[in-house]
Amino acid sequence: MKLYGYWRSSAAYRVRIALNLKQLDCEHESVHLVKDGGQQHSEAYKSLNPMELVPTLVDGDFTLNQSMAILDYLDAKYPQTPLLPNTLEDNAKAKALAFDIACDIHPLNNLRVLQYITGPLGQSDEAKVAWYHHWIDTGFKSLEKKLAVTAGTYCYGDNVSWADICLVPQVYNAERFNVDMSQYPIIQAITERCRALPAFHQAAPEQQPDAV
Amino acid sequence: MKLYGYWRSSAAYRVRIALNLKQLDCEHESVHLVKDGGQQHSEAYKSLNPMELVPTLVDGDFTLNQSMAILDYLDAKYPQTPLLPNTLEDNAKAKALAFDIACDIHPLNNLRVLQYITGPLGQSDEAKVAWYHHWIDTGFKSLEKKLAVTAGTYCYGDNVSWADICLVPQVYNAERFNVDMSQYPIIQAITERCRALPAFHQAAPEQQPDAV
Repeated sequence: MKLYGYWRSSAAYRVRIALNLKQLDCEHESVHLVKDGGQQHSEAYKSLNPMELVPTLVDGDFTLNQSMAILDYLDAKYPQTPLLPNTLEDNAKAKALAFDIACDIHPLNNLRVLQYITGPLGQSDEAKVAWYHHWIDTGFKSLEKKLAVTAGTYCYGDNVSWADICLVPQVYNAERFNVDMSQYPIIQAITERCRALPAFHQAAPEQQPDAV
Repeated sequence: MKLYGYWRSSAAYRVRIALNLKQLDCEHESVHLVKDGGQQHSEAYKSLNPMELVPTLVDGDFTLNQSMAILDYLDAKYPQTPLLPNTLEDNAKAKALAFDIACDIHPLNNLRVLQYITGPLGQSDEAKVAWYHHWIDTGFKSLEKKLAVTAGTYCYGDNVSWADICLVPQVYNAERFNVDMSQYPIIQAITERCRALPAFHQAAPEQQPDAV
């Protein structure tokens, strides 16, 4: 298996955590999102993933993009260490938490969006950071309320799930932008417990060979 | 079953299509996203869905948010008319197309984001429309390339899937912003074929009782 990713990409980080939890061997290929105007826009990468985003997983002759589809595929193909609860309702609730992050928080704060804010929209760095904080704050405040009901050791009960796999990269990202995480004590506590697990630790951006 | 939604919400529209395809009876409750400063922010709705977004599905005593988690739940609980291919690889590919839209196109263009562009960022309506067109164009151009490989009658082969359920509401939205859909002939043709199906037609915004 080969994962095309980038050390700081939250979406690639999710997949790295899942691969580690399932103890799957995987080669990592770095796609530098900034160098050369963004290597994700190269002809070679575009032919692999026309969305021009990371990650892309290649498993034998099968190629798949979208981190959430990749999590799902890995869980179906490699069922060891399931990444979701096994009852219908719990499964759905854990997924909803993951999508709260993957659909309603992360897309607003990734690199290409922040570049558009300071580029074509001509906004200051200050306005860009305010934008970032606004969406994190909106999302994390709501998430904190949901986690007050669903969390045990992790986001949904006492087993790691997609929700944690999405949460930890989002918190890493928020910390880069100096979000005061003490405002979100449940999120903070879950993140710390996840980070203590080798699968999460080894997937962290600063552990990757392409980290700067 | 009861669906809290809004006629123009793309995410609620997805769920309406799925309910219709599965011929499930469902009561619809309108949450007006503009009136009263947005009814999704009311105390009553917040207690149902702390994310303060639509849709929310209530099925007996089970409450679920996030349209993609709801599609998944409906498919697992009510397996009639499956909404995904049944082989592992095809299933994953169809989901990836759906997430291309749900994670990388739609979140950048929904109401609260456009409100922030003209509100706190102080941008003109013209800049807001340029923002909208930029993300639609980026996403649809890439999607058109993927569909050139995967599409049959619908986005993924000849059966309706999550990809179509996400595509048609996104195209509806793009048309509202006067995107020239003739630039994307495959997307346009698939959309027309979907719209000819009663399940899609009856789920359309203008068919809803809360449509203005």
